[in-house]
Order: sequence, then structure tokens, then C-alpha cells
Amino acid sequence: MIIDCHGHYTTAPAPHNAWRDRQTAAFAAGGDIDPLYPAISDDEIRETIEANQLQLLRERGADMTIFSPRASAMAPHVGDEAVARIWARRSNDLIKRVVDLYPETFVGVCQLPQSPGISIAQSINELVRCVTELGFVGCNLNPDPSGGKFSAPPLYDRAWYPFFEKMVELDVPAMIHVSGSCNAAMHATGAYYIAADTIAFMQFIEGDLFRDFPDLRFIIPHGGGAVPYHWGRYRGLADMLKRPPLAEHVMRNVYFDTCVYHQPGIDLLFRVIDVDNILFGSEMVGAVRGIDPETGQYFDDTKRYIDALPIPETDKAKVFEGNARRVYPRLDAQLKARGL
Amino acid sequence: MIIDCHGHYTTAPAPHNAWRDRQTAAFAAGGDIDPLYPAISDDEIRETIEANQLQLLRERGADMTIFSPRASAMAPHVGDEAVARIWARRSNDLIKRVVDLYPETFVGVCQLPQSPGISIAQSINELVRCVTELGFVGCNLNPDPSGGKFSAPPLYDRAWYPFFEKMVELDVPAMIHVSGSCNAAMHATGAYYIAADTIAFMQFIEGDLFRDFPDLRFIIPHGGGAVPYHWGRYRGLADMLKRPPLAEHVMRNVYFDTCVYHQPGIDLLFRVIDVDNILFGSEMVGAVRGIDPETGQYFDDTKRYIDALPIPETDKAKVFEGNARRVYPRLDAQLKARGL
Repeated sequence: MIIDCHGHYTTAPAPHNAWRDRQTAAFAAGGDIDPLYPAISDDEIRETIEANQLQLLRERGADMTIFSPRASAMAPHVGDEAVARIWARRSNDLIKRVVDLYPETFVGVCQLPQSPGISIAQSINELVRCVTELGFVGCNLNPDPSGGKFSAPPLYDRAWYPFFEKMVELDVPAMIHVSGSCNAAMHATGAYYIAADTIAFMQFIEGDLFRDFPDLRFIIPHGGGAVPYHWGRYRGLADMLKRPPLAEHVMRNVYFDTCVYHQPGIDLLFRVIDVDNILFGSEMVGAVRGIDPETGQYFDDTKRYIDALPIPETDKAKVFEGNARRVYPRLDAQLKARGL
Repeated sequence: MIIDCHGHYTTAPAPHNAWRDRQTAAFAAGGDIDPLYPAISDDEIRETIEANQLQLLRERGADMTIFSPRASAMAPHVGDEAVARIWARRSNDLIKRVVDLYPETFVGVCQLPQSPGISIAQSINELVRCVTELGFVGCNLNPDPSGGKFSAPPLYDRAWYPFFEKMVELDVPAMIHVSGSCNAAMHATGAYYIAADTIAFMQFIEGDLFRDFPDLRFIIPHGGGAVPYHWGRYRGLADMLKRPPLAEHVMRNVYFDTCVYHQPGIDLLFRVIDVDNILFGSEMVGAVRGIDPETGQYFDDTKRYIDALPIPETDKAKVFEGNARRVYPRLDAQLKARGL
């Protein structure tokens, strides 16, 4: 089967988004930050999914998406800790409804109620709720809740440890994923996302996080930011910083998805990064929605690029399924329970 | 001939660096921010150059370096505008001494006296001085003088226009180059540099800068940050933002160097980016100084990667010489005056 590890509910029903607008307006006005949540029918949800994610999955030949709330809408820099907590809960509950409507096609990954300057420990309860009560298999961890100031401690800092301990205990990975940019100099999907991916990887080189957490696992999306293209630089920097080779220092714990929207980029990714560290992902319906005039195909139809690789079918099976089941053991367990 | 477009005086004599320490200490203490500059002999300068840049150039078979002050030491976020102005002048004068000692091997590019929140117009005088009095052929333009806050307006903002007008008038390009990071979450050479390169390129997509300045030219170093790896994303984003294709919207004015420290990265760069937009560069003696255990060669010996490319010699000649002479017309004029 073919599992897309990186899908967002970018097409959430309008009443959900309108609720968020009311929430942030209430915060600004000093009102109720948990206004009445609208009734959203199953049909409304089906409509947003079937015309978008489900249709694209079918057209492109994938079977399942690891699905999370819209990344750019997480916006932890908007409001405060309480706003973030309620918003994460609403967003995750909506994902749960999608999963319940299409249990064979979607599996949940949660948004966390992060807030700039607030301890990540405040996000543990929502992670536990989503994993143990809603059946989610992972989370999106934002390394920069400030929305572009990069004011959080680096990921190897002990400030993150309480959350990492819970991730290991629950045996769930995190995708490193920033949200919208609140800086006009930094375009969200074109600059901020890619920069944050790259910065996170360098933090992993600088620290010794995986010595302390040998079972902690992260997916760096968007093909690992700039990292595969600059793989020589990172190997060289690890050496200069007296760190072990990347294969043991970082790559036992870090995975890249395939959200790289052209064949040469995917070719490089597979040439440089061990196939055991690559997970199929498309980020759809997401950052780039158009058709590549050079190929006549959608930029984000990343399955085509992988299909075109001259690699063994066993390797493709790892990228499409095996690695995801290994990195998300709770997904694997769910699939096994269904006889898959 | 072989021209390296990206070299920094990372090995500047100790008294020069000690002067800077005295300057910043004086600023902090409210003292004289232009303390007596030490006498540095020609031999002291020769020693730092011959054992480093010159030796490596000879060993690696390059002829000339477009040479600028150490990027990480520009540190425009340290001190204030006056500190930056004096520091830039000292640094540029030192580059001029290197050029005068080795006029066949080094040509100068200047540091600018940028300061966070201060108009770039304040940098015009130093640019003019360096170009018209010292014979420099370009400048390093810092898109984020804050040292990691990305608080400056995007490069397409009119705040930059007075400086760009002067660049066009003088017919000099700028290399986009940030300095040291003042953020522990963002490693300078491993994260901040690559992020800033990527962010700058996305700013060029978002704006219409080159419609207003058709003759303005920028070099984005470090192989263009993440851009070639994510070339499909950037083509797709240009399309989503209703911008013309990148070839006409950005790539008539923007060039990437070859500071990518492994063969697969260089292969991708040449596969994706037109050869007319690529300038040989090594960033040495710079970010990554070690030997790649996989090849037994220095990571930053980027000439080897280009030599290994299966492309016509005429294309290599463009990358090693022709493009640099086209992008830096004042260098071309100097070489022609020497019969080269």
C-alpha cells in the first residue's frame, strides 16, 4: 500500500475557519476565546475531502494519508496559551471526524497547543489525548512558535525534554513543522518552511539529543529543507564540530519526506539519503497547487517522481509503506489490526 | 583563467581582529569607537595569505579570487551605525592592501556599513569609495543586518532602492551575504547562511525588483541556498503568485555560486540552473575546512566537482571565467587592461 506521510486539512469547512476568526477577534477584544463551535455536518466534511484530498489520492494512486490540521493555520503566535489550547483541540477534533468518516484512508496526526515563550510541557496533555483517546499516531512539532523570530530554544535544549519523554513513552514521532510567517520578509511556504527545516537539522547536528533519546524520531518535511543539496556541508560541519558521522549522530532518528516538486530534486534526495530515511509525502493539498508546464503534471504529484526512479521495487516499497510503518508504529499496529 | 567569486579574508592578521575587539569594547563602555589602528606590516599580511588562500588557490588550480572581508565578522548588529561605518572602512582598507600585494590574484569586494534599522542609503558612500577609489568590483549586501531576526524590509522594498540605483550606476553586483548569527537556535554557516540565501530568492520571486532595475545583479552564494533542490517549488510558487516564469522574472539578474560541498549537489545545480547563471566559488578559507572521508579531498575544493561534470569545456569556461567577467564588468575591464 502507499502511505502519504504529509497531508494537511487545508480544505477545512468554512464554519471551522470562521470559528477561528471569531476566536481571535474575541481574544483581541477581551471576549470569550471559546465561542460556540458551529455544527458541521458529516456531509460538509465529506464534500471538502472528496473533492480534494480523496480525489487526488485516487487519481494519483495512493491509499492513505497521515493527516493533520492545516499547518499555516496553527498560528501559535496568535493569541495566547489558552487560545492555542482551545484551537488545537478544535482542529484535532475535526481531524478525528475525517478519520472516522474515512478510516481506511486517513490517520490522524495532531496539532499542538504551542505558544511563544510557553513551556512545551503545556502541550503534553493534548498529545496524550490525541494519541490515547483519538487514536492519532504522531504530532506536528513547531520549532518556532513565534512565527519567524526563531526565539525558541534549539531542539536539543532540555526545555524540550519533557515533551520528548512523552513522545518516546507513547512511541509516536513528530514532524517538524512551522506555521505561518508573521514576517513580511519571509514567505511562508517558499522561505520560512524551508529555512525552518534546515535550521532544525543543523540543531540536531549541534546537539546530542539522540544520545539522550535513542528512540526519538522526527520527520523533517519538504525533503529535509536544504539539507540533501548541502549534504557535504553538513557532513563537513559535523566533522568540524567533533560530532560523530551523520549516519549515527542524526540519521538513526531523522527522516525526510519527498515533498520536493521536481524530478532532479527527488533524484538528489535518493542519491544522497539512505532509502531507509525517506518517507513518501506530497504535502497536498498544500503549498504548490499548479501544473508544471515542463511535465504537464501537478508539481505536488510526488509519487510520479518516485515511480520514475531507477531503484529496486523493494526500495520503493520502503518509501511508500515500510518506512512509514516503522516510524509510526501506532499506524502499523492499526493496519495490522485490520489485517494489512 | 579560473576566477573564484567567493573568498573571504577569514585569516586576517590578529592585530586587525584585536582592533575590532577594542572597538566593540569601547562602544560598550562609551569610549572611543575608532581607537588607534595598529601598524600591520606587509609581511604580516603576506604570511596570512600565502599560507592559506594563496596556497590553496595554487594547489587547487585557480587563478584569482574575488575577495571580501570575513562575512561572519561583519556583525552589523554589534554596536551602532558609526561603529559599523568605521569597521567597514578598516576591513575594506585591509582587503585593498591584500589586492595591492597580489594584484594578479585578488580583486576586492567590499563590506558595507549596514546597521539594523538604519537606512541602506548610509552605505552608499562606502560603496562609492571602495569602487571608485580602491578599485573594488562589487559588494556584499546583508539582507538581515539584525543577525538573525530578519527584521529588514524584503529586498524588493523601496527602502533598498537608493542603494540599488547606485549599484546600477557604478555597474557593480552584490553578493547577498548575511553575517554571524546572534541566535543560538541558528548556527551561522550551517543554518543562517543557507536560510538567508533561500529567503532572499523567495523575496525576488514575490517582488518586481528587476522590472524596476533590469541591470541590477545579485549573486546568491552557497549554491543558491535551498533553491536548486526545490526548483519545482519555486517555479510553482512563481506561477501561484502570478509572476512570470523564473527565467525572465528572476534569472536574468540572479546568479548562484558553486559553494556546494559534494558532487551530487553540484550535479543538481548544473542540471537545474542554466550554466549562464552559475559562477565558480569555493567560500574558502571558510565554512567547512575538513577533508571528506568519502573522497579524500577537501569538502570546499569545489573545482573538483565542476571538473568532474560531463559538460562541454565551453560551459566550464563560462562558470570559471566568462560569467564572472560578465557579472563583474569592472573586473573584466581590469583584466582587459592587463591584456587578459
